[in-house]
Amino acid sequence: MTDAAARTDAEDLVLREDIDGVARLTLNAPARINPLSEAMLARLQGELDALSVDASVRAVVLRGAGKAFCAGHDLKEMQAARQAPDGGRAYYNALFAQCGRMMTSITRLPQPVIAEVHGIATAAGCQLVATCDMAVAADSTRFGVNGVNIGLFCSTPMVALTRNVPAKHAFEMLTTGEFISAARAAEIGLINRAVPDGEQGAAAMDLAARVAGKLGVAVRTGKMAFYAQAEMGLEAAYAYTGRVMAENMVHRDTAEGVQAFLEKREPDWR
Amino acid sequence: MTDAAARTDAEDLVLREDIDGVARLTLNAPARINPLSEAMLARLQGELDALSVDASVRAVVLRGAGKAFCAGHDLKEMQAARQAPDGGRAYYNALFAQCGRMMTSITRLPQPVIAEVHGIATAAGCQLVATCDMAVAADSTRFGVNGVNIGLFCSTPMVALTRNVPAKHAFEMLTTGEFISAARAAEIGLINRAVPDGEQGAAAMDLAARVAGKLGVAVRTGKMAFYAQAEMGLEAAYAYTGRVMAENMVHRDTAEGVQAFLEKREPDWR
Amino acid sequence: MTDAAARTDAEDLVLREDIDGVARLTLNAPARINPLSEAMLARLQGELDALSVDASVRAVVLRGAGKAFCAGHDLKEMQAARQAPDGGRAYYNALFAQCGRMMTSITRLPQPVIAEVHGIATAAGCQLVATCDMAVAADSTRFGVNGVNIGLFCSTPMVALTRNVPAKHAFEMLTTGEFISAARAAEIGLINRAVPDGEQGAAAMDLAARVAGKLGVAVRTGKMAFYAQAEMGLEAAYAYTGRVMAENMVHRDTAEGVQAFLEKREPDWR
Repeated sequence: MTDAAARTDAEDLVLREDIDGVARLTLNAPARINPLSEAMLARLQGELDALSVDASVRAVVLRGAGKAFCAGHDLKEMQAARQAPDGGRAYYNALFAQCGRMMTSITRLPQPVIAEVHGIATAAGCQLVATCDMAVAADSTRFGVNGVNIGLFCSTPMVALTRNVPAKHAFEMLTTGEFISAARAAEIGLINRAVPDGEQGAAAMDLAARVAGKLGVAVRTGKMAFYAQAEMGLEAAYAYTGRVMAENMVHRDTAEGVQAFLEKREPDWR
Repeated sequence: MTDAAARTDAEDLVLREDIDGVARLTLNAPARINPLSEAMLARLQGELDALSVDASVRAVVLRGAGKAFCAGHDLKEMQAARQAPDGGRAYYNALFAQCGRMMTSITRLPQPVIAEVHGIATAAGCQLVATCDMAVAADSTRFGVNGVNIGLFCSTPMVALTRNVPAKHAFEMLTTGEFISAARAAEIGLINRAVPDGEQGAAAMDLAARVAGKLGVAVRTGKMAFYAQAEMGLEAAYAYTGRVMAENMVHRDTAEGVQAFLEKREPDWR
Repeated sequence: MTDAAARTDAEDLVLREDIDGVARLTLNAPARINPLSEAMLARLQGELDALSVDASVRAVVLRGAGKAFCAGHDLKEMQAARQAPDGGRAYYNALFAQCGRMMTSITRLPQPVIAEVHGIATAAGCQLVATCDMAVAADSTRFGVNGVNIGLFCSTPMVALTRNVPAKHAFEMLTTGEFISAARAAEIGLINRAVPDGEQGAAAMDLAARVAGKLGVAVRTGKMAFYAQAEMGLEAAYAYTGRVMAENMVHRDTAEGVQAFLEKREPDWR
């Protein structure tokens, strides 16, 4: 895909609406189940980069247009790349690097990101769900890391999956390629909860609104520390989060929040 | 708080009873839901330091006096520290370091520590539950890491929480500040089990007694290895625990334990 | 035990049958609940080493002959080693190193390994279950890491257990020595699922067959990456698995698999 084509498509591939401090991003290629094409990844990256410095946004919802959330990479586009002299190796390396960068950008984004899932979430689409900080799904949603069925093991989705789901369940999903239900996804930690079909939009916005109602600096600081301390040993994690919490404590708005609590009144944060 | 004041309060802030090799520690500031004030942290540290070299104690139960387990840090005391020229930064850093040291002392304590939880366990109180090696709670107990509600993200409680609970559930608790029930806490791994209200004391003592009935050197060695190997890669963990187990095996009392098993009789460990 | 004795026993201690690309290994010392004696460990190691280079095998099932799966180490053999001048220390160190090597060989084996469990799986037998990539068990199976009952904490089984099961549940099993049911084992992630008694053999073979039906190179690559990335930080894990997936993508059979999917037909992998 040329840069020009990417630019042409880019206008509609990801939609963004802002509602009371919540940015709602919609993957918008419903005819093909919102594949993570190069152009889609670039557009998502662009939105994430913009959100990362947008103080007006306090939470993000990520969803898919049409009948399902996301079916993973754009296999047609990937298959075309085989025509290159190297059989596509350089292209694939670049593509997975681009995808990994987008996924880690969700993790690094200061605002919490909530996946609103329906229909199916497969392969890199399932990775998106696992990568988001929280996820709610319609009861009928099916989840799978099913690349193995076509000979392409979901190795990058596995990174996010195994950081959410017990080892044996993750291994089974990855090597059998079978789908699990939303109820099962909730049971094993892939999503926060399943809700009746049609209610996932309200459930995601409700969760986002609750988070958006908190003091922004506390949530941003906390999210960053959440992932940073997860990669540390116990003592390093305490040394680090102790400093994080001391900085949080000296913040002016936290002073007001604690004082309001002691006086049994609502904090005046505006 | 001056050292003198700390010393005055210290006598009653943590109670210790010893019952058949089980030390039962009770946080004892029920009027304020047993806050982890400087003085309380110092007293707990003192008890833990004493227990760490007390061969007569084989298990520890930690509980709270009054209507609830523990509501976390002492916000009133913390707020007062803002009067310092640096706005309290040095104080907060020292306080969280003191708290982190106390928490890791529970993990490093040779004896297993069992939280007996009732009422509420919030913020650093919830961290205490997560930090204990095991925990039982009354059915009506509510758990939360709800500092975010007053603008103070529970960054240090998060260290213990995320080492017990799946990522998405931990993230939700931390950023929404909402409470979960004892049944839910059991489901996601924050506690071992919930029991009917009023039975948590017996359940905790029963669990403690079962552990206290084992060979002390085996339990001590095992608890230390439990946390040490968790921070290692697979091969390092096997190399380390292999040596630990060989040392355990050559212990005189283990020789008797294995022999008794082979002869289908009770071991003579006294 | 001398080498000669090991060789004599070796013929029957582990049975191997090959069924449609699935190698089924049976621990075969049923009179003593299939203990992981030196000879058994050596035989299992030999089978694993052979399987690791056997391209005809695409999945492995591991089970026990007789009334139960495996009761762990051979305590009689271990007790005899105390007669050595060093009280057995060198022997025990060598034994646990041998056992750890066998366990990690299961993890390193290119093919997925499925435990088929019935009766009991205790101590190193429970470790075997935790170590296998997947596990199914008969409903009546009981699981325990119960060495603590005889004064020998299950330190090496703990390595595998804690990488499968939430911390507080693992700690309780290790320090109380109590058994859990198959239903509970499924709930906490120790096994993939429990099935009615007598159906565990078919369930294990069914799972193995589903995995064996996938493209071998994808499964092998994926299994290796599964455990490798688990020990990395997030960014390193993405950098690594991105390269793994690019290599998977340029494989000839994957090209066919993706193309078949796009053309809505079965891949022609033979």
